[in-house]
Amino acid sequence: LDYQHVQVPFEITLWIMLASLAKIGFHLYNKLPSVVPESCLLIFVGLIMGGIIYGLNDRSPPVMDSDIFFLYLLPPIVLDAGYFMPSRPFFENIGTILLYAVVGTIWNVFGIGFSLYGICQVKAFQLQDVSLLHNLLFGSLIAAVDPVAVLAVFEEIHVNEKLHILVFGESLLNDAVTVVLYKLFRSFCEMPTIKSVDVFAGVGQFFVVGLGGILVGLSFGFTAAFTTRFTKDIRVIEPLFVFLYSYLSYLTAEMFHLSGIVAIISCAMGMKRYVEANISLKSHTTVKYFMKMWSSVSDTLIFIFLGVSTIGENHEWNWPYICFTVIFCLIWRALGVLVLTFFVNRFHVNTITSKDQFIIAYGGLRGAICFSLVFLLPDFHRKKLFIAATTVVILFTVFIQGMTIRPLVDLLAVKRKRESAPTVGEQIHIRFLDHLLAGIEDISGHWGQYYWKDKLEYFNSKYLQKILLREYDQPKSSIVLLYEKLERKHAIELAQAGQLAHGPAHPSFLCSAFLCSSSDRTVITDQKLEDTPNPEVLDNMQEILARNLYRIRRTGPAYNRHTLPGDSEPTERAKEILILRHKSL
Amino acid sequence: LDYQHVQVPFEITLWIMLASLAKIGFHLYNKLPSVVPESCLLIFVGLIMGGIIYGLNDRSPPVMDSDIFFLYLLPPIVLDAGYFMPSRPFFENIGTILLYAVVGTIWNVFGIGFSLYGICQVKAFQLQDVSLLHNLLFGSLIAAVDPVAVLAVFEEIHVNEKLHILVFGESLLNDAVTVVLYKLFRSFCEMPTIKSVDVFAGVGQFFVVGLGGILVGLSFGFTAAFTTRFTKDIRVIEPLFVFLYSYLSYLTAEMFHLSGIVAIISCAMGMKRYVEANISLKSHTTVKYFMKMWSSVSDTLIFIFLGVSTIGENHEWNWPYICFTVIFCLIWRALGVLVLTFFVNRFHVNTITSKDQFIIAYGGLRGAICFSLVFLLPDFHRKKLFIAATTVVILFTVFIQGMTIRPLVDLLAVKRKRESAPTVGEQIHIRFLDHLLAGIEDISGHWGQYYWKDKLEYFNSKYLQKILLREYDQPKSSIVLLYEKLERKHAIELAQAGQLAHGPAHPSFLCSAFLCSSSDRTVITDQKLEDTPNPEVLDNMQEILARNLYRIRRTGPAYNRHTLPGDSEPTERAKEILILRHKSL
Repeated sequence: LDYQHVQVPFEITLWIMLASLAKIGFHLYNKLPSVVPESCLLIFVGLIMGGIIYGLNDRSPPVMDSDIFFLYLLPPIVLDAGYFMPSRPFFENIGTILLYAVVGTIWNVFGIGFSLYGICQVKAFQLQDVSLLHNLLFGSLIAAVDPVAVLAVFEEIHVNEKLHILVFGESLLNDAVTVVLYKLFRSFCEMPTIKSVDVFAGVGQFFVVGLGGILVGLSFGFTAAFTTRFTKDIRVIEPLFVFLYSYLSYLTAEMFHLSGIVAIISCAMGMKRYVEANISLKSHTTVKYFMKMWSSVSDTLIFIFLGVSTIGENHEWNWPYICFTVIFCLIWRALGVLVLTFFVNRFHVNTITSKDQFIIAYGGLRGAICFSLVFLLPDFHRKKLFIAATTVVILFTVFIQGMTIRPLVDLLAVKRKRESAPTVGEQIHIRFLDHLLAGIEDISGHWGQYYWKDKLEYFNSKYLQKILLREYDQPKSSIVLLYEKLERKHAIELAQAGQLAHGPAHPSFLCSAFLCSSSDRTVITDQKLEDTPNPEVLDNMQEILARNLYRIRRTGPAYNRHTLPGDSEPTERAKEILILRHKSL
Repeated sequence: LDYQHVQVPFEITLWIMLASLAKIGFHLYNKLPSVVPESCLLIFVGLIMGGIIYGLNDRSPPVMDSDIFFLYLLPPIVLDAGYFMPSRPFFENIGTILLYAVVGTIWNVFGIGFSLYGICQVKAFQLQDVSLLHNLLFGSLIAAVDPVAVLAVFEEIHVNEKLHILVFGESLLNDAVTVVLYKLFRSFCEMPTIKSVDVFAGVGQFFVVGLGGILVGLSFGFTAAFTTRFTKDIRVIEPLFVFLYSYLSYLTAEMFHLSGIVAIISCAMGMKRYVEANISLKSHTTVKYFMKMWSSVSDTLIFIFLGVSTIGENHEWNWPYICFTVIFCLIWRALGVLVLTFFVNRFHVNTITSKDQFIIAYGGLRGAICFSLVFLLPDFHRKKLFIAATTVVILFTVFIQGMTIRPLVDLLAVKRKRESAPTVGEQIHIRFLDHLLAGIEDISGHWGQYYWKDKLEYFNSKYLQKILLREYDQPKSSIVLLYEKLERKHAIELAQAGQLAHGPAHPSFLCSAFLCSSSDRTVITDQKLEDTPNPEVLDNMQEILARNLYRIRRTGPAYNRHTLPGDSEPTERAKEILILRHKSL
């Protein structure tokens, strides 16, 4: 036995296997996932596993490595989120999302930080040694709403598109703010004195981190699109480029201390439409499938690890600090959403209702990002207290809020997502209105959303498409593409429907008459060939032959006289077979 | 800049990216791959990169790590090979393949080992210090035909199926022999005295390694098939199980010092038919696509690394030893094939022609397995000589033999692979003959190939399918599955053909009439709406409307009077649209 040799890949494979099997297990019982969100179940599995490891080894189970989380587990989820981001609602609400993500996060960080510092001044709680900077640092890591946790819960409750994109978009874009504030406060903690220059540098850094991430992402995205122009002869490696370039954008951004999440999202959103047009249909299926698969596995692993890491001896319990952290997280988020939405609603016709505001505030789940950041803290004497508080906040938000949000959505009758996809007619009208509004904005001189969208579209079709698309001379409209897709889907459905209608007659007949597969042969021998001359079977046979062996009569005699090869052209014949079949349906 | 933090994933991604871009580059020039095999080009790229690294750093570039090769690069290729192995020719020729793989490899090992020992006895060559055991150890690593190199060359020359499976099957199955002999001689080298018990243990070990590999592989394969029974609700992680279980089978086999290659091949071949039946069509596309993609990337990386690792200072040059190694490799392989084929042909009606024998002997390419094994040798004073000899043999076989085998196949007019797939009629007849032969063998009491195949098929349909398939009550015959597949393919083709026929008219019409996408709008404005009332366009419009907006007249008036929702049932209507379209073709 040589375990050492294969240990690393073996253990990785086993963890992934465990995650996948856990997922299967939950879905075997249909009722369970409808009550408890999957994320809770996975954390629960993790807790049990952590308990087992702790019990067997008598020492703390291994904690989720922050490097593994940020380098390997987070990127697939964010890539998936970015690639499948509904771009229309996202860009329609980009202003609101940015307000929540930037101002809202800063509000939460300082709100939580200062009020916890206030708690620390109470002598009875024995927390006077926790400085203001440490509290702000803690606030910066605990304030960030987690995209993984939000996605896990919101994918199951099907709220309306706008509400979903507001919470989810915020959770993605607040990464830039979190990164800057976290690193700022961490470096402040290590500095002897803080100059005002440093504070201003921090404010400037925010723009560098965010915009730099977008820039890195878009450049990698466009390079990816450009690369897929040349893969016509080797379709098989096409999906690879989508993954490689997005991952490189993430790593490059992380390398330069920019926001990796923002970079990978810009990369995915930038490349999507060009890559989709360049690569083959099968490649695209593979890309979509693998992205979903990877993100699903990463997601599962993160929650399991979260559970495993909770068990152990790296916690310092302090009732007041932990309780007040949870309370302040809730209060400041609610206040922030209320205040910000008040301003947002003043400038929008389509306002955010108070029900939606409640769900936005309530959906601010914390997750693995906070957890990884708290372990990345430099060692100081109260680190274990911070770890305990973070763990409690995560478990509270994921379990209590995650489990009650679905009943609350039902109770409040929050507007749900429409079930059906928009019809082609609706899509055409939406397009039409877009162009109309762009025209109105152009004439009225108002540089609004539609104006910029139109300009961008013009730039895209005039320059970008020519560079990035393989067949740029005839750019297909998305409606035509949709039409083709529907047509194809339809044809498959028809073929399958035809199949299903004949299904019960076919296999049994083919099996017994032509195939004589060994088991059938045995059966026939056992029955002493009793049912072979059965008139019913013969009728059935004739009917199937008449239906399927089309034109056998016509080509039969013609074959001997003048066999014109063009006469029974295969596609022509096949076409008529299909038509005949559909008629017979 | 924080490069340290992201170094590992960043460099891995860059290497894969380099490999993919190199592949694209070669395919941009269509003529190049038809003359020089891709493997040669990739080694060449590796040599150049190695030269650059050597020139810049002034020290040997990093050598391909044997662990990375055996744990990460080899499994995807072997999995791909096993999964797409044409099982019929493989099992039809299993006897011959095993003879070549087992007896042939042993023949080569001892032939090369002993004759090189003979060369070492010549005083003028200054090689007296290389013992017989060391020569046999060297023989055991240099005798193994490499599946990666064979696949890379034979996939391009399209020889007939039997010839291909003979060479390729041998290269896969000789792994068990190579593993045993290599480990045996390596342990003998370290033993003070060798007892006859050890030799017998070695012979016994061969069976353990080979059969153990099959057992491990099959058990993981069946577990994988069983697992996919329960993935109906979460289709998205289905492909994962195929990869996870196969990789686990490889790692488990390696862990117990069994043959990992044999294990992963048995796993893939064992699971294939059940998994295919259980998972969805899209999952299956993803599995196939990703397997091909991964193996293609691994393959590329292996050859590039092979090139990079060749450059450096770990070679000891000894002309006679290296030249005689190349010569003996050629001679003993040729002799082995001749002798073994003589016996094979005596017992078979369908003999192996002398042309085929030549190609089998000539196709014995060495590759990365030898290279990795030679670096795994324990340190002794002549290791560098062995490394040099191995490198020369690999480069000689890949470059000289790999580049000349295609012209030789053309020159000898070796029977090629048939281009077209067998028709359904042919397949039915082959099945029929199989059953007939099984019956004849059963009656005549001859327990031949067909008898066993029939028994296996019976066992499969009676027990295995019931356990491993989700819908076991109605097992579909492979002919029915083929029929469904053809039907589906056909429907897609028809839809696309219909699309293409309308293509030129549609997009332009739709764009100008409905969509008014910004660029079109600009164009129309430029043309001052001149062509809108063009009668030709109007005719075109009417024709398209008549063709596509089916039943618009009938549902129009009916809508106001008695709107029966069941009247215009969507599937019914869509069906008739498709039929109308096909008629109009």
